[in-house]
Amino acid sequence: MSAPDPIREAVRQLRRLPGVGEKTATRLVYWLLRAPEGTPDELAQALTRLAAEVRSCTVCGNLTGTDPCTLCADGRRDPTVLCVVEHPQDVLAFERSGEFRGRYHVLHGAISPLDGVGPGDLNLRSLLDRLRGGEVREVIVATDPDVEGDATALYLARLLGDVGVEVTRLAHGISVGTEIEYADAVSLARALQNRQKLT
Amino acid sequence: MSAPDPIREAVRQLRRLPGVGEKTATRLVYWLLRAPEGTPDELAQALTRLAAEVRSCTVCGNLTGTDPCTLCADGRRDPTVLCVVEHPQDVLAFERSGEFRGRYHVLHGAISPLDGVGPGDLNLRSLLDRLRGGEVREVIVATDPDVEGDATALYLARLLGDVGVEVTRLAHGISVGTEIEYADAVSLARALQNRQKLT
Repeated sequence: MSAPDPIREAVRQLRRLPGVGEKTATRLVYWLLRAPEGTPDELAQALTRLAAEVRSCTVCGNLTGTDPCTLCADGRRDPTVLCVVEHPQDVLAFERSGEFRGRYHVLHGAISPLDGVGPGDLNLRSLLDRLRGGEVREVIVATDPDVEGDATALYLARLLGDVGVEVTRLAHGISVGTEIEYADAVSLARALQNRQKLT
Repeated sequence: MSAPDPIREAVRQLRRLPGVGEKTATRLVYWLLRAPEGTPDELAQALTRLAAEVRSCTVCGNLTGTDPCTLCADGRRDPTVLCVVEHPQDVLAFERSGEFRGRYHVLHGAISPLDGVGPGDLNLRSLLDRLRGGEVREVIVATDPDVEGDATALYLARLLGDVGVEVTRLAHGISVGTEIEYADAVSLARALQNRQKLT
């Protein structure tokens, strides 16, 4: 005998989530069975709504419940600066920082020949469309500081070279709060290369 | 701006799960949004079914999709030995061991005065009903080897003292595969106390 069918099926479905193995999935299912009345149903409804209502914004590519998304629809945001990110989560990170009041463009990935992801797989066509509008003056390339992010940044710099916009990239260096003793070598090297004048 | 409503709501619901914080919930939601078509719906359906179909077996208290559960309904299992456990997951653990062919009784907890759990909160009435049937000869108390499990075992030993069944408890000692060097002190002490003759 093993667990009853509905329990087995719930474990099987939860195991598909990243980082959730057999043990964690089983623990979650038995937790849900002891949880306050309605908890599994409320979670189920939220997931159903997620699948039904979330789509890509036709302007910026960000995931959204409305089209265009609230960021693209917000007239108070500066339309002359475009921050290009790999993933929708990156938009949330920038919004949390409170430092950026321009607009976003989500590529949904980065160039990675090893994974078979080329420029054609990224949300680039609508980026070029937006730039043709002529309103954008600066594109901030905010791809991750890794091999794929660097390759994507280089590709964008070349692609946008003729469009007549300024292309910048996020500064790299040691994180705020990092003790130099424990900083990783690559970040420390970048921090040296990008050092700034104090006086 | 923050994430769109359906995403926020899904994050909020996933955060209710034990061990899932804001970051993990967000990661899971964005993973689900990129997952193969239908994945969130399949998970949602499994959770709905879980809530709708799983109930307690009226005989043993185990969680089940049918009543009585498949274990209670299985005529090939020995009805003279009853293994009393705290949680339904414990039944799965015994079944995995393949060592036990008797029947189970699930208490759904252990006596814990600090948490306000007394004998009246455990699934004990149906245990006494089963013993009154007269078929059971041995009750194996398989509560956890901790304060609550020990208290519950003692309580059961006293409660069942007059019923005329043999009451035993699981052996405690060092786990198979544990190097003695790294065994915890309490298990090692129990292993010494419960040492067995080799010749």
